[in-house]
Amino acid sequence: MVHAVLSTYAPAAARIDLTHRIPPHDIRAGALTLWRAAPWLAPGVILGVVDPGVGTARRAVAVEVAGAGAVLVGPDNGLLLPAALRLGTITGAVQLPPNPLAPGTTFDGRDVFAPAAGRVAAGAPLSDLGQAVDPASLAGEPVPEPVIDPDRGSVEAEILWVDHFGNAQLNATPAHTGPGPLRVRVGEWEATLRVVASYGAIPPDELALVVDSYGHLSVCSPGRPAAERLGLRPGDQVRLNREPHGHR
Amino acid sequence: MVHAVLSTYAPAAARIDLTHRIPPHDIRAGALTLWRAAPWLAPGVILGVVDPGVGTARRAVAVEVAGAGAVLVGPDNGLLLPAALRLGTITGAVQLPPNPLAPGTTFDGRDVFAPAAGRVAAGAPLSDLGQAVDPASLAGEPVPEPVIDPDRGSVEAEILWVDHFGNAQLNATPAHTGPGPLRVRVGEWEATLRVVASYGAIPPDELALVVDSYGHLSVCSPGRPAAERLGLRPGDQVRLNREPHGHR
Amino acid sequence: MVHAVLSTYAPAAARIDLTHRIPPHDIRAGALTLWRAAPWLAPGVILGVVDPGVGTARRAVAVEVAGAGAVLVGPDNGLLLPAALRLGTITGAVQLPPNPLAPGTTFDGRDVFAPAAGRVAAGAPLSDLGQAVDPASLAGEPVPEPVIDPDRGSVEAEILWVDHFGNAQLNATPAHTGPGPLRVRVGEWEATLRVVASYGAIPPDELALVVDSYGHLSVCSPGRPAAERLGLRPGDQVRLNREPHGHR
Repeated sequence: MVHAVLSTYAPAAARIDLTHRIPPHDIRAGALTLWRAAPWLAPGVILGVVDPGVGTARRAVAVEVAGAGAVLVGPDNGLLLPAALRLGTITGAVQLPPNPLAPGTTFDGRDVFAPAAGRVAAGAPLSDLGQAVDPASLAGEPVPEPVIDPDRGSVEAEILWVDHFGNAQLNATPAHTGPGPLRVRVGEWEATLRVVASYGAIPPDELALVVDSYGHLSVCSPGRPAAERLGLRPGDQVRLNREPHGHR
Repeated sequence: MVHAVLSTYAPAAARIDLTHRIPPHDIRAGALTLWRAAPWLAPGVILGVVDPGVGTARRAVAVEVAGAGAVLVGPDNGLLLPAALRLGTITGAVQLPPNPLAPGTTFDGRDVFAPAAGRVAAGAPLSDLGQAVDPASLAGEPVPEPVIDPDRGSVEAEILWVDHFGNAQLNATPAHTGPGPLRVRVGEWEATLRVVASYGAIPPDELALVVDSYGHLSVCSPGRPAAERLGLRPGDQVRLNREPHGHR
Repeated sequence: MVHAVLSTYAPAAARIDLTHRIPPHDIRAGALTLWRAAPWLAPGVILGVVDPGVGTARRAVAVEVAGAGAVLVGPDNGLLLPAALRLGTITGAVQLPPNPLAPGTTFDGRDVFAPAAGRVAAGAPLSDLGQAVDPASLAGEPVPEPVIDPDRGSVEAEILWVDHFGNAQLNATPAHTGPGPLRVRVGEWEATLRVVASYGAIPPDELALVVDSYGHLSVCSPGRPAAERLGLRPGDQVRLNREPHGHR
């Protein structure tokens, strides 16, 4: 239905489905998915809907990052902000009004977001879509950056995401940690893990840090889901230390 | 495969997947899905395939509703008629011949419907696709309208659909019933339910009637699937009465 | 993500998803899917990714079948060869270099295959994509042809595929066997089966050979999945014999 409305407003625009598999109401998962994908989606119009508050007082918004040629459209519930901030400085935001022709108030994807996204894709300026709002008032947080402690040679990272293979993606990259192996500590658990370039490079029962397709370190184990094996969950803090004699 | 054939016949036409999740052979579910979506799909060509009779004597048809700029293509088994009648008066219908180049007779979506839909999308007149048939001979029934009894102040409605959240969509809208609360009776069960504008407006253990995204009243309960809780099924009759002292 | 990259390189090209349901790492299932679909996909660029070896030494390739106007892009692991050989003689092949801008080495679909496919779709010659390699060095086997023994009047076929209805697709067509009924032998099991044109033509508890939508004979039973009932698996040998007095 959203595609049908988009194609009415912007018949010449290419439309791409990023995913339909965000768990219901999981704003964090949706926000991280957009944040990871954003560099490949811009320039363009990014429409996101994970919207447990549809029909309530939460705002509908369009957010512009002019430097990236991007406009993000969706609910103002934290879904859009991480991707917007990854693309650059937010240069404008508007609140989208309700659609007086909508038969109900429970499908803003079709009735509010798609018409706005379609109009922007067809060339309308942001200011045509609604009243300007202060970008600082937008809901959500940027994705946390790892904290580097140069004195202790350690990086305090965080688990962003556990994928359906049980791999636990961190917010840290090799640019933060330097090359491996790395001493990894989560809660009481601690081990030294190699940093490898592919899942195939890990023996079946071993754990390792894979540099995943977004450049992030990910705790992986081919034999058994790493996250289940270690009890890892999104939001867990992870300390990473260069091994003093790393060249093993 | 259907998309590949469509793009061969109509390379410039936008193609949109409405759904691939109709349960196998469930013509009623497919027909209701097209009926609900039709206002957003027209003008355009609508190709539907829920086709347990593929390869048998059931006809393949294209149905035109000229007033809406719509042509519907698919099996003549009741799948298309509700959507066609919702869009307006049927102005023509043709029977599509078998495809002599098809390697088998079990995939008319690819071999018969897609070439016909693609040709119409590229501008061919309906009469180029096959022999005219009498629109009155098309299989299927319109979606039943609720029956309004002004003397008793009641509306006899029907459950059209139970969605995967367990919400039970009725064929009645607030235009039929007036505003809530409404006295609702299904079989032996009876209760007074509020009419609300969003799922979020219902306390967890309560039942209510939500005006859904198609404008229809839907029996909903956030805590437990309403249909399971009350044993509701598509086709069940539902009596709705205005409460005499509705302003509670 | 792959679509986003494709649309950057080839904004005007139609993009079609054939399937996202190949079981993880099942190269044989992916290769057969492309092989079956190939006649409907050419002319065009065919991008396939079933790639358990991503990030290892397996080559990334683009394979040209000039006679069909087709280029196939993906891992050199046997996924592409059956479809390429079905389309005609392979007229060129190149090895795709790694993408120096990729943030990791685990998503060649996005980082290596999509840019190559997009460039070809936009008109680039194969030789622009990488170093030529000998087509004879490409990994994989053609789909096996049935062996016809005219003296015994038998055809030695093979089960290619068991679909999710439990139908067992053979590599033989009625052009190999002649019309039915056919005496069918798999291992110790043996029976005479009718050849029919549709699933609906088989009584509930009966087995029959359906000419499926690709023209192949498929062992089917409406009542219970035929493959489970008979213990059939991909790769099993099947002997088919014309009945001496076939006109029953």
